[in-house]
Amino acid sequence: MATFTYSTRIYYEDTDAAGVVYYANYLKFMERARTEAMHQLGFSQLKLANEGFVFVVSSCQIKYLAPAKLDDRITVNTTIKSMSATSIIFMQNISTTKDIVSGEIKVVCVDAESFKPRKIPTHIKEALQCQ
Amino acid sequence: MATFTYSTRIYYEDTDAAGVVYYANYLKFMERARTEAMHQLGFSQLKLANEGFVFVVSSCQIKYLAPAKLDDRITVNTTIKSMSATSIIFMQNISTTKDIVSGEIKVVCVDAESFKPRKIPTHIKEALQCQ
Amino acid sequence: MATFTYSTRIYYEDTDAAGVVYYANYLKFMERARTEAMHQLGFSQLKLANEGFVFVVSSCQIKYLAPAKLDDRITVNTTIKSMSATSIIFMQNISTTKDIVSGEIKVVCVDAESFKPRKIPTHIKEALQCQ
Amino acid sequence: MATFTYSTRIYYEDTDAAGVVYYANYLKFMERARTEAMHQLGFSQLKLANEGFVFVVSSCQIKYLAPAKLDDRITVNTTIKSMSATSIIFMQNISTTKDIVSGEIKVVCVDAESFKPRKIPTHIKEALQCQ
Repeated sequence: MATFTYSTRIYYEDTDAAGVVYYANYLKFMERARTEAMHQLGFSQLKLANEGFVFVVSSCQIKYLAPAKLDDRITVNTTIKSMSATSIIFMQNISTTKDIVSGEIKVVCVDAESFKPRKIPTHIKEALQCQ
Repeated sequence: MATFTYSTRIYYEDTDAAGVVYYANYLKFMERARTEAMHQLGFSQLKLANEGFVFVVSSCQIKYLAPAKLDDRITVNTTIKSMSATSIIFMQNISTTKDIVSGEIKVVCVDAESFKPRKIPTHIKEALQCQ
Repeated sequence: MATFTYSTRIYYEDTDAAGVVYYANYLKFMERARTEAMHQLGFSQLKLANEGFVFVVSSCQIKYLAPAKLDDRITVNTTIKSMSATSIIFMQNISTTKDIVSGEIKVVCVDAESFKPRKIPTHIKEALQCQ
Repeated sequence: MATFTYSTRIYYEDTDAAGVVYYANYLKFMERARTEAMHQLGFSQLKLANEGFVFVVSSCQIKYLAPAKLDDRITVNTTIKSMSATSIIFMQNISTTKDIVSGEIKVVCVDAESFKPRKIPTHIKEALQCQ
């Protein structure tokens, strides 16, 4: 997958009383970006769930470099670092005119009922690799 | 149901850049209070969902009287105003040393799959009325 | 103001274990829509806050008509119902292919420090009325 | 600081359409736990902010081991791994009857206006070390 770009404005809901984006909320922006990247490749979270599997985050390493503020427009750049049979590691960077947050997020394909790891379906893997 | 009391502290996650609790978040506190009230009567949301029904909010009227702030300790008082075969109207009041928010929330019992209204199970209704 | 339209996809963050959008989160979509409407007229929340005033919600009446679900694309239509010296009443409707939520939200202009009501600045009122 | 324990129930607001706690929300529980630990030592976030400094998260490493679900009661155990002149590294573990999430969170003391690092005030450092 080439770099996928998602962009949004910062609203009151995203901020906290320190006047900046609350630290957990950057993970929401990152998930929206991964979801939009999947959509661009033709895969929806709902369709995947209905087919019996869900992608869940198994680990993340986040570096907070500078705070985003109310009304800022942020861009989330997403690339794939590596893939295994059951997992994908995404590199995600959030920026305004400067770098705000960088993260490495490992996502595992699991069964929608048991939450046990299962192989990423071939057509998804191929779609991700062709990018 | 007599007045049920739920209390919590205001954390950074609850506030926004205006320095006060974000207006949608009071609805979270109200739902926690309703959930704890149900637990006190012996009913868990999960058990209800597993039995095939869910309580969903069908309408709410909220008045914001004064803002709660970081580190405030709020109390949510919850009473039942009325019940019908399929719905319950709750009166909920959030306060610190003064009144913060008051709300009237109508909750409907629906089928967990179709989300169509269904009768509130008798044992729940009785438990609520005995209070 | 003519009808202002804001649109977004429903992400995992917006949903809950009942499989639908959590009831408080519709208020976030409504606030984003009001914020974007203000931006379209040339006003940013941040600039307003820096000028010493904030628009806060003083009451809302929300009707939940049908649930929105993961991956749904929702549209929030926003119009102004009426204005007074210090407040604005918005009518907001959220829909997919059907109506999901309708709300009447009263917003009051307050001093950013004291949170006491103050007159809506003339240039904002005029911009809103010209629409 | 000895191990500090914070506990809460999982509510609908915490979960998503996959039926489990949304991955960003565990960071909220962790922050509540750190806040309560500070309160137990006599420090409030608000008082600190009023004194001109804020503790902000500069990095986190999170491992998601198993999902927490609606109605689960979770416990967040918090210990201090190390401290420098301007930062604290917390180890935080979330569990039900089994381990759910483990995290290492680095928090930096910054000026409330400029968000530039500044020394942790001596009385706070001493209070944390005496534990």
